[in-house]
Amino acid sequence: MKLKVKLLEVEQGRNEVVLNEFEAKEATIDIGDRIKIKRNAKSAVAMVDYSHKFIKRGEVGMFVEIAEALGAKNGEALDVSLTDRPKSLDFVRRKIDGKALSNDETFQLVDDMMHQKLSDAELASWIAAITTRGMSPHETSSLTNAIYSSGEVMTWKKKPVVSEHSIGGVSGDRVSMLIVPIIASLGITIPKTASKAISSGCATADVMEVLAPVALSMKKIHEVVDKTNGCMVWGGSVNLAVADDIMIKLRMPLRLDPRGLVLSSIIAKKKAEGAQYVLLDIPVGRGAKVTDMEEARSMAHEFKSQSLHVGINFDCVITDGSKPMMKHIGPVLEARAVLEALQNKGHVALVEKACLMSGMLLRMVRNVSAGKGYKLAKEQVASGAAEKKFREIIAAQGGNPKVQPEGLKIGEYSSVVESNMEGKVSHIDNVNTARITRALGSPGDKGAGIVFDVEKGQEISKGDVLFKIFSSSKPKVDFAFEEAKRWPIVEVERIIMEVIR
Amino acid sequence: MKLKVKLLEVEQGRNEVVLNEFEAKEATIDIGDRIKIKRNAKSAVAMVDYSHKFIKRGEVGMFVEIAEALGAKNGEALDVSLTDRPKSLDFVRRKIDGKALSNDETFQLVDDMMHQKLSDAELASWIAAITTRGMSPHETSSLTNAIYSSGEVMTWKKKPVVSEHSIGGVSGDRVSMLIVPIIASLGITIPKTASKAISSGCATADVMEVLAPVALSMKKIHEVVDKTNGCMVWGGSVNLAVADDIMIKLRMPLRLDPRGLVLSSIIAKKKAEGAQYVLLDIPVGRGAKVTDMEEARSMAHEFKSQSLHVGINFDCVITDGSKPMMKHIGPVLEARAVLEALQNKGHVALVEKACLMSGMLLRMVRNVSAGKGYKLAKEQVASGAAEKKFREIIAAQGGNPKVQPEGLKIGEYSSVVESNMEGKVSHIDNVNTARITRALGSPGDKGAGIVFDVEKGQEISKGDVLFKIFSSSKPKVDFAFEEAKRWPIVEVERIIMEVIR
Repeated sequence: MKLKVKLLEVEQGRNEVVLNEFEAKEATIDIGDRIKIKRNAKSAVAMVDYSHKFIKRGEVGMFVEIAEALGAKNGEALDVSLTDRPKSLDFVRRKIDGKALSNDETFQLVDDMMHQKLSDAELASWIAAITTRGMSPHETSSLTNAIYSSGEVMTWKKKPVVSEHSIGGVSGDRVSMLIVPIIASLGITIPKTASKAISSGCATADVMEVLAPVALSMKKIHEVVDKTNGCMVWGGSVNLAVADDIMIKLRMPLRLDPRGLVLSSIIAKKKAEGAQYVLLDIPVGRGAKVTDMEEARSMAHEFKSQSLHVGINFDCVITDGSKPMMKHIGPVLEARAVLEALQNKGHVALVEKACLMSGMLLRMVRNVSAGKGYKLAKEQVASGAAEKKFREIIAAQGGNPKVQPEGLKIGEYSSVVESNMEGKVSHIDNVNTARITRALGSPGDKGAGIVFDVEKGQEISKGDVLFKIFSSSKPKVDFAFEEAKRWPIVEVERIIMEVIR
Repeated sequence: MKLKVKLLEVEQGRNEVVLNEFEAKEATIDIGDRIKIKRNAKSAVAMVDYSHKFIKRGEVGMFVEIAEALGAKNGEALDVSLTDRPKSLDFVRRKIDGKALSNDETFQLVDDMMHQKLSDAELASWIAAITTRGMSPHETSSLTNAIYSSGEVMTWKKKPVVSEHSIGGVSGDRVSMLIVPIIASLGITIPKTASKAISSGCATADVMEVLAPVALSMKKIHEVVDKTNGCMVWGGSVNLAVADDIMIKLRMPLRLDPRGLVLSSIIAKKKAEGAQYVLLDIPVGRGAKVTDMEEARSMAHEFKSQSLHVGINFDCVITDGSKPMMKHIGPVLEARAVLEALQNKGHVALVEKACLMSGMLLRMVRNVSAGKGYKLAKEQVASGAAEKKFREIIAAQGGNPKVQPEGLKIGEYSSVVESNMEGKVSHIDNVNTARITRALGSPGDKGAGIVFDVEKGQEISKGDVLFKIFSSSKPKVDFAFEEAKRWPIVEVERIIMEVIR
């Protein structure tokens, strides 16, 4: 049938057109049916939604994406016809029914997802099915390759190429920002694409952004790495493994992290980064993403075997994820800490973890033991070579290489949270730390953050300061102070639990 | 924050607002997050979508449903803030994880679905989880009650109240249109709400609509039933078990029919109809919804036990669903057949099935055997009492009680499909019958349809007419003729398969 375009001036991010409900029903076109719209040599397939009032008979409501793709103008009459549903819908159905998908089926599904041929509801059903049915190693490899192939790929002249990644969940875990300059200073290529905070309070890209631009073009990233051996850029500014970003959005509302998706997501991203050797950090403990040691071990083994299937080497390290990595949390506070650590001014835990992990990376690519590698890494920090490299990378990315910790400003408003009892600090919670950091305005407000006055295990008195909070906004400090009562960051247990007389 | 309303002039059927992508990201508001919009004493919660161009900073794009609910005007500044995600999302997650939901959780989930607090993707995940995890009898009862409570409920003065339902899939199965007048003529209340065709070629409400209006108000339906003991109306015109309609839409793209949803859907609808005793028809066979006898039996037993949990009695009958019920398919053709059957002018199979089922219904509510009930039903048809009652119901619903079969006009365009080989008719396919009936324009075109010239098992020669097709549109006849080659309705097998000499 011929329908007149009614332009709907908003992007919908979805591949939908709107038909008049009564007219569509008469033509037995249902919500979610696929229709083909033709305009000269161009055509687009979109899913149908209904309007009973605002789209009149004879009209087709068109969001800007489709209109732009077709070059369609308001009021123009176009040919619209029902078309078959995509075959990949049958694959989703088969996965729901508990059957494994073949390599071709997985590629087709990801391709249809990339071309917006499936609705969010249909894709969410697929992800729910993966969660309940699991994925075989073969399916996981297929999905990894399909995700890898969905975006751009980085290639590096200077081999070997190494990378490092944490499955996350630990506040203040900025080891990447030490590992990259340490490894790069030893002449090894390490192009790090980092994320910005999604559920965390602030992530590596947010902290690096304090020191230098992180949203670089593909070309610029290659220039930086060719010059310095390393980089710390935001992965969101380049189109690596784009299918993964779509799937992560779909996983968020229900927080679905089935093993097969976690594996394929991380391995595909690292492969697209051009990495040949990857060290994966799996933090374990209360408040971390993985709480059970056995689970962490089985995850590590799956990463090792799955990564080999798609041609990269993963080693894994299980670390303590039960508390924040640093006493300073927030973009500026963490950037300061990283600089100070590289200047040999404290932050021992951060330096130790970074050097241990660097040692393990060196074991993978140099003919050394992890212990020898650790010593090499420590020397790079102690000698100032790592700091020098760090400043080179900052300069190459467009930041100020002369930056000093004290030159970075934290939020002007602050407040203090005190203990209302005496006792021993029994737990510092990563999840609530992230929550309060966000409440303070991080990562948008670079100066927002938390400084802890206590450590786990420390004995304290009533009225002692537990932590200070900072923000560039007074209302946010007040809000976060209240939130911190609801979501306690520091747990204190009484030394004497009960007295019996 | 304060945002200015930008009215988006289209209904979205979804509970969404659109924010400027950059502004939202700065405020760490993600796609799918819930925000609360306040206007004077009113407030609404909606899910966030992004626009990077058409919604500017400082604006909130608002589809008409939410704007109308708030009374919001274009350009008006309203207070917008992040709010918690609904608790029922955790219940969806738990179902995905394989845990059973409690009665309260199920009610909360259905309630949040009714109030559009969950996105289609979230609801689709729930349905996928039900499909893969199954539902316990307890969960199924909870869902049945929750669906039942989600809409209006019919109440009837004159008890007992009976009903009849087929799980469907058989073309030309119009037994309801005989059972209702037979039972009603015996003084028993039988308020039938029927469906219009969704995937079938034409359904009971489409056929009844040829004879009388079927989209009646609740008040009007009560008048019709109080007067005549029966009715045949479209369920879509009254708000019975509304949650079921939402769930059916979500099930359609992936054709998900998990047992627990089929049970709760049908039982809830029947309970909302006010039925105390229900006879359920489960057609079985090639081309039907259920193809396996064992599956039909287990389904029947589950219907019996589940229905008792929510306080109605189901009896089930398993019938032959391997071929169409009549030789005449399409709204007008079937309406004619029903009238002729009630006038004792042929259509023996239809009359027999209707009387056998009526007998089983009478066994449930009168102190008679099914055999005695069958005889009672046959008498009502033979004596003309059923026809008289049928015309009373037509009149009460607002149709012409004097209607005669020959007064109903079929499509003026037609074509003939012939056999291209000699042999025996081995199968007449329900699915392809429905497909071609729709291709001819049914149910919108009342005169569209198929008349079979052959029966299953009949021996035919090459060139014999298999069936005729009718439509009010010449292009549709041509299109259906071509489609019938792709999707064969009548299968013929050679009598002599092979000769060995």
